[in-house]
Amino acid sequence: MKEYFTNVSKINYEGPNSKNAYSFKYYNPDEVIGGKPMREHLRFAMSYWHTLTANGTDPFGAGTMLRPWDNENDSMSLAKARMEAAFEFMDKLQIDYFCFHDRDIAPEGKDLAETNKNLDEIVAMCKDLMEKYNKKLLWDTANLFNNPRFVHGAGTTCNADVFAYSAAQLKKAIEVGKELGAENYVFWGGREGYETLLNTDMGFELDNFARLLKMAVDYAKEIGFKGQFLIEPKPKEPTKHQYDFDVATVLGFLRKYKLDKYFKINIEANHATLAGHTYEHEICLARNNNALGSLDANQGDPALGWDTDQFPTNIYNSTFAMYEVLKNGGIAPGGLNFDAKVRRPSFEPEDLFLAYIAGMDTFAKGLRIAYKLLKDGPIEDFVKERYSSFNTGIGKEIVEGKVGFKELEKYALENSNIKNKSGRQEMLESIVNQYMLEDK
Amino acid sequence: MKEYFTNVSKINYEGPNSKNAYSFKYYNPDEVIGGKPMREHLRFAMSYWHTLTANGTDPFGAGTMLRPWDNENDSMSLAKARMEAAFEFMDKLQIDYFCFHDRDIAPEGKDLAETNKNLDEIVAMCKDLMEKYNKKLLWDTANLFNNPRFVHGAGTTCNADVFAYSAAQLKKAIEVGKELGAENYVFWGGREGYETLLNTDMGFELDNFARLLKMAVDYAKEIGFKGQFLIEPKPKEPTKHQYDFDVATVLGFLRKYKLDKYFKINIEANHATLAGHTYEHEICLARNNNALGSLDANQGDPALGWDTDQFPTNIYNSTFAMYEVLKNGGIAPGGLNFDAKVRRPSFEPEDLFLAYIAGMDTFAKGLRIAYKLLKDGPIEDFVKERYSSFNTGIGKEIVEGKVGFKELEKYALENSNIKNKSGRQEMLESIVNQYMLEDK
Amino acid sequence: MKEYFTNVSKINYEGPNSKNAYSFKYYNPDEVIGGKPMREHLRFAMSYWHTLTANGTDPFGAGTMLRPWDNENDSMSLAKARMEAAFEFMDKLQIDYFCFHDRDIAPEGKDLAETNKNLDEIVAMCKDLMEKYNKKLLWDTANLFNNPRFVHGAGTTCNADVFAYSAAQLKKAIEVGKELGAENYVFWGGREGYETLLNTDMGFELDNFARLLKMAVDYAKEIGFKGQFLIEPKPKEPTKHQYDFDVATVLGFLRKYKLDKYFKINIEANHATLAGHTYEHEICLARNNNALGSLDANQGDPALGWDTDQFPTNIYNSTFAMYEVLKNGGIAPGGLNFDAKVRRPSFEPEDLFLAYIAGMDTFAKGLRIAYKLLKDGPIEDFVKERYSSFNTGIGKEIVEGKVGFKELEKYALENSNIKNKSGRQEMLESIVNQYMLEDK
Amino acid sequence: MKEYFTNVSKINYEGPNSKNAYSFKYYNPDEVIGGKPMREHLRFAMSYWHTLTANGTDPFGAGTMLRPWDNENDSMSLAKARMEAAFEFMDKLQIDYFCFHDRDIAPEGKDLAETNKNLDEIVAMCKDLMEKYNKKLLWDTANLFNNPRFVHGAGTTCNADVFAYSAAQLKKAIEVGKELGAENYVFWGGREGYETLLNTDMGFELDNFARLLKMAVDYAKEIGFKGQFLIEPKPKEPTKHQYDFDVATVLGFLRKYKLDKYFKINIEANHATLAGHTYEHEICLARNNNALGSLDANQGDPALGWDTDQFPTNIYNSTFAMYEVLKNGGIAPGGLNFDAKVRRPSFEPEDLFLAYIAGMDTFAKGLRIAYKLLKDGPIEDFVKERYSSFNTGIGKEIVEGKVGFKELEKYALENSNIKNKSGRQEMLESIVNQYMLEDK
Repeated sequence: MKEYFTNVSKINYEGPNSKNAYSFKYYNPDEVIGGKPMREHLRFAMSYWHTLTANGTDPFGAGTMLRPWDNENDSMSLAKARMEAAFEFMDKLQIDYFCFHDRDIAPEGKDLAETNKNLDEIVAMCKDLMEKYNKKLLWDTANLFNNPRFVHGAGTTCNADVFAYSAAQLKKAIEVGKELGAENYVFWGGREGYETLLNTDMGFELDNFARLLKMAVDYAKEIGFKGQFLIEPKPKEPTKHQYDFDVATVLGFLRKYKLDKYFKINIEANHATLAGHTYEHEICLARNNNALGSLDANQGDPALGWDTDQFPTNIYNSTFAMYEVLKNGGIAPGGLNFDAKVRRPSFEPEDLFLAYIAGMDTFAKGLRIAYKLLKDGPIEDFVKERYSSFNTGIGKEIVEGKVGFKELEKYALENSNIKNKSGRQEMLESIVNQYMLEDK
Repeated sequence: MKEYFTNVSKINYEGPNSKNAYSFKYYNPDEVIGGKPMREHLRFAMSYWHTLTANGTDPFGAGTMLRPWDNENDSMSLAKARMEAAFEFMDKLQIDYFCFHDRDIAPEGKDLAETNKNLDEIVAMCKDLMEKYNKKLLWDTANLFNNPRFVHGAGTTCNADVFAYSAAQLKKAIEVGKELGAENYVFWGGREGYETLLNTDMGFELDNFARLLKMAVDYAKEIGFKGQFLIEPKPKEPTKHQYDFDVATVLGFLRKYKLDKYFKINIEANHATLAGHTYEHEICLARNNNALGSLDANQGDPALGWDTDQFPTNIYNSTFAMYEVLKNGGIAPGGLNFDAKVRRPSFEPEDLFLAYIAGMDTFAKGLRIAYKLLKDGPIEDFVKERYSSFNTGIGKEIVEGKVGFKELEKYALENSNIKNKSGRQEMLESIVNQYMLEDK
Repeated sequence: MKEYFTNVSKINYEGPNSKNAYSFKYYNPDEVIGGKPMREHLRFAMSYWHTLTANGTDPFGAGTMLRPWDNENDSMSLAKARMEAAFEFMDKLQIDYFCFHDRDIAPEGKDLAETNKNLDEIVAMCKDLMEKYNKKLLWDTANLFNNPRFVHGAGTTCNADVFAYSAAQLKKAIEVGKELGAENYVFWGGREGYETLLNTDMGFELDNFARLLKMAVDYAKEIGFKGQFLIEPKPKEPTKHQYDFDVATVLGFLRKYKLDKYFKINIEANHATLAGHTYEHEICLARNNNALGSLDANQGDPALGWDTDQFPTNIYNSTFAMYEVLKNGGIAPGGLNFDAKVRRPSFEPEDLFLAYIAGMDTFAKGLRIAYKLLKDGPIEDFVKERYSSFNTGIGKEIVEGKVGFKELEKYALENSNIKNKSGRQEMLESIVNQYMLEDK
Repeated sequence: MKEYFTNVSKINYEGPNSKNAYSFKYYNPDEVIGGKPMREHLRFAMSYWHTLTANGTDPFGAGTMLRPWDNENDSMSLAKARMEAAFEFMDKLQIDYFCFHDRDIAPEGKDLAETNKNLDEIVAMCKDLMEKYNKKLLWDTANLFNNPRFVHGAGTTCNADVFAYSAAQLKKAIEVGKELGAENYVFWGGREGYETLLNTDMGFELDNFARLLKMAVDYAKEIGFKGQFLIEPKPKEPTKHQYDFDVATVLGFLRKYKLDKYFKINIEANHATLAGHTYEHEICLARNNNALGSLDANQGDPALGWDTDQFPTNIYNSTFAMYEVLKNGGIAPGGLNFDAKVRRPSFEPEDLFLAYIAGMDTFAKGLRIAYKLLKDGPIEDFVKERYSSFNTGIGKEIVEGKVGFKELEKYALENSNIKNKSGRQEMLESIVNQYMLEDK
């Protein structure tokens, strides 16, 4: 088998003082933290699209990426070269999982039948490589947004033929997931949204979307696909208004259509920020609703209004995310998928490694800090004390549902002089800094 | 009774060509449109707080407003003067409804008992004036955000005493609503949110908030309060993250706690835009979920990130809002409350009239345009045709639930060559312009 | 010569009541307003890139546009077909001007020499068609952002070879402008900005950018190019931070490097909003600094954070823009270039016409309203009166520089009791509405 | 003299492992870094308004702050109590500098004469305390925004009487600065901006603003005030559009009116982010223009659109800021003023200390990291190498102005095949993380 990334060897942990740019400084996959090796805490996944397929185009410029497989001539040879490179890449980076859209790994043919045939051929190859390299499929998904046929949506299209096509493509993608042992299956509604209400029947489109998801649930049951279904929220882009705006919106949608027991949520950092939230807000909200499924690990630029999908390098964000993950008892069967692309000016093959190292180290460090914060407990203890008035007396009665407005009015009339305590935000932020900077 | 606004007489409709700044150009309350007078379509309401109580402070400056009741010395005299002025104001502007927070109309006393006593005195006065002037209470609400005791929230506080106090205040406000025949009761969660997750138990706070609402539902039933309960979403401000982020979030919350049949939504334009939505998106979403309760009519500045609460003067926005209202079959028992304040530099009493006229004319014109658009049907016809593939054949089977993934795959394999039609956004926007500009 | 848009005939003015979607409702090119036909007020220009070259790709999807020249096989045949179609298009829409980037009209060859040869061939063809159809070049520009060589910038690159290449390309583009009688030449710094300060020497890059502009000034003088040089501000996208952030930034830059007498500004609506300004703010600021050069007419979506380049359909925006243009004494030698693209779902050739009609009507109506507003003077009169205290007494002395701090302190000590007058924003907005809705 | 903060003793450096919340973990004022003690690098200043005067009001709520001087009855006693507390506070926190607005320290009287008298009395007291405690005035300024008289602006008002009053107040504030040895004087244009162009003559207002600044320059010369004049940019809030939008805007304004040699810039982090920039962008831009004057150290919330003025706790931001400061050769005669307020829920007196400690430690740590980064040079070396093509050959000739378009075209025609190198953003971000996390 061909080697593609000849300039880079296997990446190992060399610790923070290493000057070797191609080493992990914080990610030591086999180091045990709280009884579990880091690789099991983090369950890192390679995103196939950003790593193998993307070429660096942006709305104002052509592709810039230099890739060792650029000289492949036909689309199936290219697909195979990329697949080989993908496993070499994961192997060198010690990444255990990967994620893909159906169209990332195999090209479309002249019709759906040929497209499916292409896909089958590559999936077989992929299966062999998974075994050879001991890699696993975190999730797959169907690309229902790139092809012009999805211009008005897939499940929320105004064209019944497109709905049918989407269903067929979804069916196949779930079958592929089953064949490759996918631990999850993700629905990202790339074109499920609208550009203008002037030509849109929003109520009808959402009903149809629920119909499509219901069919997916039924079909998964029928064929015995055991992966967890996940919905990935995003508020805008490509459409003006995406239906799966954020975690709260998705939860409400699932409840309306009685789909909530079949779906959890795949949360992406940059999508959270585009919705006006923090990553940790979205994770916490999903956790509180028993719906935390998996994570897309990237970051946006707070000064920019589009999905920059940058590699995550902000230690605060990774710490707060891992804090929630630990409180959730872990992220499995989900994982941390790097839905992140090297910057357009980082166009050399080596940048792929440097960027993944940056991201993996960032989350590894976040895990270490979050673990120590939780173990020592300065934040949790403060919070516990802060709400302690609900553990006894009138507070306890409120929580236990023993009192109503009349009892509470009586109490309040007798307890007019209320004292609150400071929320101590600045002190708590300082404590986080100290843990972040002093963790060794 | 004293006259306060001596410079302004009753505002009448004089039509678009009138040069009189103190006349309606588009709002003719008794003109019948589609079988109903405009006043019944629009159900305008005066916001007590912005109109009578606000003084023009902002985070960088002291109050600027000149008001005829400024020379009142004690707080109860001031409250009474304002109440008299309120009815004179509504009378002169031909506004049929008003809305208030409990603390807008009567001052707090030394303790809750005295506060309630103050409130009772003013409510009695208000009831008399309502009868005298034939005005109605669109909704009332409790101010659970201004007083320092609510610094950490009301229903979502960390302090059980504050929760009890909030319940007591809510109880009284619902009683006041009953006494004055309020057609609705609004919950705006002014401090229901958080500043930092570092000191917050979000799951616990949301459970508690649901407990408070449940108590309100039970108490309303007990005393026979028939007004519609409404929740008003807002995404941020005053707290960093407000729990009632937007319509979708509120719907999801209500479903989770099985409260959805007791609450509808009060949608504010500026809150919609702060959440990254349009006003019409939020109204449409509520309508599609049978949850459109009432509207707060104002506008924000798209370049500013806070709640500017400007008087609505954008005809596009009012047209799109009224389009949804008409499709909803009207807004009653809700109405259009001007949750809008004159700009700090518009500090003369006359500005209150000029601003309300601007807002009322804007919505009256929006109503006229929306009605004509719906009657002629250029938008609705386009939309109907656009989705017509779901009326027959495979589309019909999808909608009727007669097909699943296997049938759709079979269909798709035979129907690979898909044709879509243009969404014609630019043409549709041009049609709206033409209706807006040509409506007479 | 081939006809491309066989479904659409010449667009004429049929007035607001016409039901013909392919007619002007407000744009009557030969109607005289204030002594000048509308076409001379508006000087509409077709953007070559969005109209002939763009295919509807976005970051999440492939091209959707159906174009009559899609079946051309080689790049030069395609270039020629587009050029023919361009003139047919302008002719049918009665657009007098067009604008292009060098690479829009002719493809790159294997090296710069061949690229220039391609360009020469197409320019000659273009010149013939301009004469035949009586069309004029509003401005041309060099595309220094699409090709991967510009990945780190053009004038602000870190690579001297790229700087040289940029200079060569600019030289040629100015020569092309001269050959075709361009009335202006635009510098849009597509990649003149940075992604991260970590790898950027901002001071050096800006010095270099000034060097490039200085060379352009010198070369234009040398060859006798008479077109007005324009800089087009944009705050972000494609780079995180674009150097030509907004009008104020560009003015400051030009003054620093003593380039201000050679450049004016080309202001785009969507770029203004991305910078946190309104279109009219930017136009007014340029006007006040004698730097209003030309306008790009489009609109963004205030809820979205990227350059949506939508066709302008908001009458408020076009009114306020034309108000400033009229106060400027017109926009010539600049014009109104539709830097706007049909929405990706508006993919049929007819949408190009419908969209331009929408945009042209929007600005034609804006012109009518602005003209009437200025002629009647309700806004201008208010403003004049508002500042009248500076026409006499202490105000006059301030303006004439006759007083300093000591005189003013003396005056202030004697004039402590200051009265201000209301700014009347709501009333003024209402007046604008009335003019907008009542203009016939 | 009374002690106000009886619960808190002098704050000392105890190092990162101290569990004492009231200790510095990173700020060791006398520790020498690069030949200078930390206190001289950082020149921390207390903001009088947020620390002594602010009470925690926000647009939706009353004040919450508990302060030991709350029981003072009359305004002058209160002013004196605050002044005493201010020095105790600085003393305990080891802060060497402070900043104030004239109206922070002394109340307005019945007219300007009495106001000036009040001010004189407090200034005398302040001078004594400065000597006693060995504290210095970093800068003072005039509050020309809070009082209703400034509702339409101060230097940019439409009312000549207000202009005169502003001049008088400025005159006095500069005299106070001289009396107290202020090292700088800041102009923050709180109301210098506009709400709507409909009532505004922007050109006239900016001319007037320049007139006011010119008078200030003249008067400072006349009385021998040696402090550096500074302008503080902010893009919006309180007005819709503030004239001093950002650093670039201010530089352009100063150049236009030939004021650039008299003014430098006071840059605030939260104002930078509201303008769509980063703090370090603004500092770098000022540095490159020899205009870096002083810094306001705070942070905003990237999800919120208003000036939150939070205490700075983000180590990335402080590192990047101090990196620029070190490259500037230091910040003197400017300093780091904490224009930051404790959160409304952090209402206990102790929070003031905890918040300042958080902020001071954040910048102290940023200084340490930035110093090490600069000393080791991984970023600077990368940048230097990146631009090295401009040190020789054609690059050198470009920089030295020896070539123009013709020479560069010739070069480019011979050098078509251009190679760029990766910008390595991800690797550079990783290096920063390593320095941040490993600094000891």
